[in-house]
Formats: sequence, C-alpha cells, structure tokens
Amino acid sequence: MNDVTGILARYIIESRPADIPPAVRHEATRALLNGLGCAIGSAHHETVENALAAIGEFAGPPQAAVFGRAERLDILHAALINGISIHVLDYDDTHARAVHPSAPLLPALLAFAEWKKISGTDLIHAYVLGVETECRIALSVFPEHYDRGWHITGTAGIFGAAAAIGKLLGLNEQQLRWALGIAATQSSGLREMFGSMCKSLHPGRAAQGGLTAALMASKNFTSANNAIEGERGWAHVTSTRFDPDVITGELGTRFELMSNMYKPYACGLVVHAAIDGCIQLRNENNLQPQDIARVDLLVCPIVMELTAIKEPQTGLQGKFSIFHAAATALVFGDAGEPQFSTNAVNDARVVALRRKVTVAPDAALKKIQSRITVTMNDGRTFSKYVENALGTLARPMSDADLERKFRSLTGDVLTPAAAGKLIDLCWTAETLADAADIARATVPHTGP
Amino acid sequence: MNDVTGILARYIIESRPADIPPAVRHEATRALLNGLGCAIGSAHHETVENALAAIGEFAGPPQAAVFGRAERLDILHAALINGISIHVLDYDDTHARAVHPSAPLLPALLAFAEWKKISGTDLIHAYVLGVETECRIALSVFPEHYDRGWHITGTAGIFGAAAAIGKLLGLNEQQLRWALGIAATQSSGLREMFGSMCKSLHPGRAAQGGLTAALMASKNFTSANNAIEGERGWAHVTSTRFDPDVITGELGTRFELMSNMYKPYACGLVVHAAIDGCIQLRNENNLQPQDIARVDLLVCPIVMELTAIKEPQTGLQGKFSIFHAAATALVFGDAGEPQFSTNAVNDARVVALRRKVTVAPDAALKKIQSRITVTMNDGRTFSKYVENALGTLARPMSDADLERKFRSLTGDVLTPAAAGKLIDLCWTAETLADAADIARATVPHTGP
Repeated sequence: MNDVTGILARYIIESRPADIPPAVRHEATRALLNGLGCAIGSAHHETVENALAAIGEFAGPPQAAVFGRAERLDILHAALINGISIHVLDYDDTHARAVHPSAPLLPALLAFAEWKKISGTDLIHAYVLGVETECRIALSVFPEHYDRGWHITGTAGIFGAAAAIGKLLGLNEQQLRWALGIAATQSSGLREMFGSMCKSLHPGRAAQGGLTAALMASKNFTSANNAIEGERGWAHVTSTRFDPDVITGELGTRFELMSNMYKPYACGLVVHAAIDGCIQLRNENNLQPQDIARVDLLVCPIVMELTAIKEPQTGLQGKFSIFHAAATALVFGDAGEPQFSTNAVNDARVVALRRKVTVAPDAALKKIQSRITVTMNDGRTFSKYVENALGTLARPMSDADLERKFRSLTGDVLTPAAAGKLIDLCWTAETLADAADIARATVPHTGP
Repeated sequence: MNDVTGILARYIIESRPADIPPAVRHEATRALLNGLGCAIGSAHHETVENALAAIGEFAGPPQAAVFGRAERLDILHAALINGISIHVLDYDDTHARAVHPSAPLLPALLAFAEWKKISGTDLIHAYVLGVETECRIALSVFPEHYDRGWHITGTAGIFGAAAAIGKLLGLNEQQLRWALGIAATQSSGLREMFGSMCKSLHPGRAAQGGLTAALMASKNFTSANNAIEGERGWAHVTSTRFDPDVITGELGTRFELMSNMYKPYACGLVVHAAIDGCIQLRNENNLQPQDIARVDLLVCPIVMELTAIKEPQTGLQGKFSIFHAAATALVFGDAGEPQFSTNAVNDARVVALRRKVTVAPDAALKKIQSRITVTMNDGRTFSKYVENALGTLARPMSDADLERKFRSLTGDVLTPAAAGKLIDLCWTAETLADAADIARATVPHTGP
C-alpha cells in the first residue's frame, strides 16, 4: 500500500517557507484578502446570527475575533462561525476543480494565530500547505465523491485545517498522521443541504474540526495510521474513485493554490460572462440605461436552465435571473452584493431594463463565455464577445479588482480607513511579526 | 417519496411519557445505570485524559459534570467527553443488531438536564425517543452502511441525541426536521479507527453534534427538509440499502430499547459464554483453582480466531485470550475490568490455571454458546453447557447483576455509599423533580 498519509505528513513537516515560490505566497495573500472580505461582508447575515445565538452560551474564553463583529469566542467556536461567514454568500474563492479552499482553512489559522503568536510568514506558509492538503485529497476522489452527494468543501476541507494547524503546532510525523486521521473520521457534509443554512455550516465545522484534530493529536489522542488510504479509510468509504498519486505527486512543485479563482460577481459562475461583457460595454461606451432599446445575450445552454427567472422579486431570486444580472450590470457597472440586493432587484431602472433583455442558447459557447449585443434607442449597436469571464484562471481578477471587491463587501462594517488598513495587512502579511494583527483588524471600532 | 423525516419528527413531538410502556421505561433506567458505571469507571482512562487536555483551554462555562471527575465543562464539551468515557472500554450497552445506544445519547441528555431543569420523567422519555430514533435509522441502512466502513454508533447515534434534545427543547415540526438534518450533515465516524482512541471519539462527537443540532434548530438554523431519505440524503449517500419502513413502521408499539443488551464481562462478546460457564461451575461446586487439573472448552470456531493469545502480558491482551478469560473467571468468579487488568493477567494463580486450558472448535455452537468441562486433580469432572451467555436477550443481566457491575466499575472513584446513592437515583429516575441530580451524583466528593 502506498503510504499516502505518511508521505503527506512528512512533506508538511519538512516544508520550509522558503520552499514556496513567491507567486504562490502572493496568491495566498490574495485568498486572504478575498476571504476576509467575504466574512466581514456577511458578519451579520441571518445564518451567522442564528449560529451565534445557538452556541453563544457555551463558548469559552474570548480568545479570537469573529470577523467583522465585536464578539470574541474561544478559538474552536471562532473557527466555526468564521467558516460559516466566509462561505455563506457563496462569494468566496473556488479551486478550478475542487473545493472552496479558504472557508474551511483561514478561520482555523487566524483563530490559532490569536491564541499562539505566530509570524505572518508562518501563517502564509501554513495556509499554502493547508490548501495543498485539502485540494489534493479532494482531487484524489473527485468527482465520484462529489457525485455521491458529499459537499467536498466540508469533507475535504477539514484535512486542510488539520494539516495547517498541525504544522504550526510542530507535530511530529506520528502526531500529524493522527491529526489527519482525526480529521478523516470527523469528515462530513451532504450536498442535500444546498439551499439551506447547512451549506455554510460545512466549512465552519471543517475549520473547527480540523483545528480540534490537530490539537487532539498534539496531546497524543490516537487514530488509525493510514486514515486516508487504508482499506476502510476515508477515500474508500466515501468514494468509488481514489488516485493516491494525485495526493503525493509533485509535492512541492505543483501548487493547487495557483488554480484558485475569485468571484468578481455575487452570483453563480454561469452568469459571470454576461455580466462581464455588459460592464465592459457600459464603461467603454458610457452607456446610459434609459438610452438602451434592447439587450441580446447568447449564452451556454445551461445558463438558461439555471438562471431563467424573468421577474425576480428578491435579491436571492435576482442571483438566479440572467435578465436581472445583465440589467444590474448595465445600470450600476458592477454586480456585487449591493447589485443583488432586494432593493436593486426592485430598482425602477433595473426593472425597466431587464424587460428589454432577451437570452438565447448557443451550444458553441462554454459556461464562462457569452456574446452580448446592446442596441440603443438611436439605432447604434455595441457588441462584445467574452471568451473568458473575469475571475477565471485565464483572466484572473487583478489585485486592484480584489481590493475593489473587498471595499464593496465591507463598506457597511468597516470605515474606508479601516478597510485600507486591513488591505495593507493582507498584502504585507508575510512581513508581520504577529499574524493576529490581521484577525484583530477585521473588527469594527465603535464609539469615539 | 415517503416523508420519513416528517413522520419521525411528528412522532417525537406527539409522544407523551405515558405512551411508553412501563417495561420500556424500566429498561431505560437499566441503560442509565449501566452507562454511568462505564463512564465513571473510565473517568481517568488515557483516552479521556488526552481529550480533556486538548480541549480544556477552550471550554465554556462550568455547566455540566464530567462523569466521575471534579471538572465541569460547558454542556457541548461535557457531552463530548462523557460520550468518550462511556464507550472507551467497549463495556457499554449494545443493541442486538445495531448501535451502542447510550454512549451518543445519555451524555447529551444529562448535560442538557444540568443546563435546563427537566424532570426525571422527561429525561427517561427523551432517552426512549432518542434510542428509537438512532436504532431505527441505523437499522434502516444496516448492514450495508456498516459494511461500507461506517461506525454506526457514531453515524446513527447523532440522530438520537438530536431527537432527544429536540424533544426536550419543545421544537416544532419544522425545527425538529432541521435538527435531524443538521445531525445528518454532521454524521461521521470510520471503522478504520477501531483500535485507536478515535473509536470512542465517535459517540462523543455524536453526543456533542446531536446536542448542537437541536440547539441550532431551536434558533431557526435551517437544513434540508428530508435529510434522511432525500435523493442525496444521508441514507442514500452512506449506504446502498435503505428501508424507510424500518424507521416509520410500528412507531409507538415496537421499542428497539427492548433489544438492548448489557455486557457482564469486560471483553468481547465471543468469550462470554465460556466465562459464564466457568463462573457457574466455580460457584455451584466451590471449585478451588489449585485443585483443578484441566479445563476443556468447546467453542464456536470464530472464538479461536479472535481470542487465541495463549500467553497474554497485558490486560488488553488478556481480553483477546480465551485462555486467560476462562482462568480469571475460575479464579475470581467474575470477569470485570479488575479481572482483565495487567495485574490479573500476571497473577500466579491465573497464569498457572490458563496453562491448563485447552480450546477446541465446535461448528455446532453459536457465538453465545460454549461447553465447559473442568477436571479436578482428584479425578472428578464438572460440565456445563451454556446455551445463551449471560447478557444476551434470552438471558439478560438482572437488575442485581447490573448493580454488581456498576459497583465493580466505580469502586476506584465512588465510595460504596456514593455508588449506592447513584444506583438508587437511577432506579427511581422517573420520580426525580430534577434529573440533574443524577449527573451531579456521578462526581466523587473529595475532602472532609
């Protein structure tokens, strides 16, 4: 048997910060900024409020920040709540083929940083190792594991948190095996929950469970030694496919973090190409909504299946309306959470414009592609072909794009100055003597 | 689709204490006594110590007892630790075909009782409903779910805790659906972990997770509505077999708690028949170890596979030695934890006698059967055929047997008077105004 767990454990233990290429480390800071923006922007989401209401009475010492809020919780519960808030809008980062890497991982890391002082260099290093661990394990059983019904961000994400915290705790090989094993045997999360609050509970529990796994292993709480690949191990119990080489191949040279994507728009990926084209046409030609006679979209056929709501009434319905998405993009020049609010969905200019949108399928187009034609009242037409929507690997969001997204998400919680400070802390994370500065800077200051 | 989750939720909500037959309620008090004895006897087990060392710094207010110890923890962590300690010796109750019912359930109930005052009647009622829920859900996917590699005591046990606590919280139907759904999506535990400390982590996490699920549902944290039977629900994702009628059939008339078994001896079930016969022969004939020339056992063939260690050196090895088991039973007239200690395994009388034990397979014998012949130095022989080992459903442990087991397990932790008081509290549980009296009575008193 290929000793996958042992090989992975030794890699994690032996890796040094300098082994990680600069581009990968920079990508980690981009994920950090994006993740914190999502969490802060959702700090008062109903899902977060309900979870806090349920567990607040049982939390331990105020060891760690709840991102974007005044409360402090013990590190296990902070990891839980922050894992929920990062993911709840489904606006967090997405590996090109596997999991949402940050939601199950960052909350464990930043809670840990507030408990045991660690440097920014170690934070970024542990984050990179955590992403490698969770993505490789996910990809080793993908897509069969996912097709069976497992929400892979929860089920594989827990390994990332266990590995990253295990690294920071300085676990030895046996203990890191146990940490991965304790993670494996707590792995959970059903796709049946999509559409309910439990979807974001999954990365929250993964962050909490992975952190707990590493802490237990550090106290010599034992597990099976080959929890991933064993005969009755996690991979075989939860999937019909398992390719161990995906986990152990090119360790230290292939970095899954380089396949991480960030969503520029607060809705499903399939609508992004149309939004992207509309924003480009609007900005390049200074289009005014009242001057537009019609908007014609050609899209991948699945877009029509998934986002066919013609007259959305709520912000959530707006996310499943290609008509609203195109209209809000043309009116506002953006498509963040504010443009998918219930207010925006009922804005008279948006309503008028979405009724001028027609959509047709084009089987030649991929999900990330769209053709947009805007016809003006005066007869002029403007067209745009989007080959790769913004945010895809071929056309990633720039650092400036990520800053804009961060400010848009956090505007109701942080002052512009506080947002600017946190943005700077993320970009310079590796230079920080105390990585907990980042967690503390997520908390809004109140009073004079 | 059969609305299994809804039918189960309505049954739990509508059930009243008087709907439960007296024999079932008495069985609940037997399970309570047995479970608490196991937990108190393991209060200082290494597994418990390591878990406590890992989570102690993060625990919340001292709301609930750790059975058999001075520490108090928040109710979520108390449920975790007590779920571990009940199961860690594998000496807890066992449903004839499914789960260990008490380990994932009792800790949640007693922690809850210390937080919100409930009567003993409500405690016993909720326990019965919890057992029904977890056993029926387990049996609906058994044995395929277990054969795939899931430790069903953890994976199904979490539903029992969610249902029981949901009942005590007075959840409405929608909330109880959510509680079962939040339980489903946290369900975890791999058989790969058998032989490690994680085996007992599973019921601990189930107790903690089920309690958390009910608390979250009470704050309107939502899940899927048909989490058990849905297309991508728990049953279909974790098993190839699912029989919904097992869950919904004969609700209120068939009680799975009546198929609950208690282990009289601190080792695997397959050795029980031999031990049982040896103890009977010893007591009926006043046999003295030094007068015995040989002991001949006929056993089910699998016994020879599983317990073939001829010269055990440690207590744990002794549990896998039919030779030691027979000898210790003949020497001491019992086979509890003390008779499977490393001291007992190396006791000169036991060592001498186990070398006189021969074992032969008999394919006509079941696992719970054995034929024992003891030949004395003076040539007399005594024989016994055990058709149903003590502790099986056909020959259950008496209430007095359970009291003896409880006293044997708790002797190092509780004074005889304290043990007696707790025994009385269990038998009279339904009369208590405050069920938390039981949890508090598990704590040893120190000092003058």
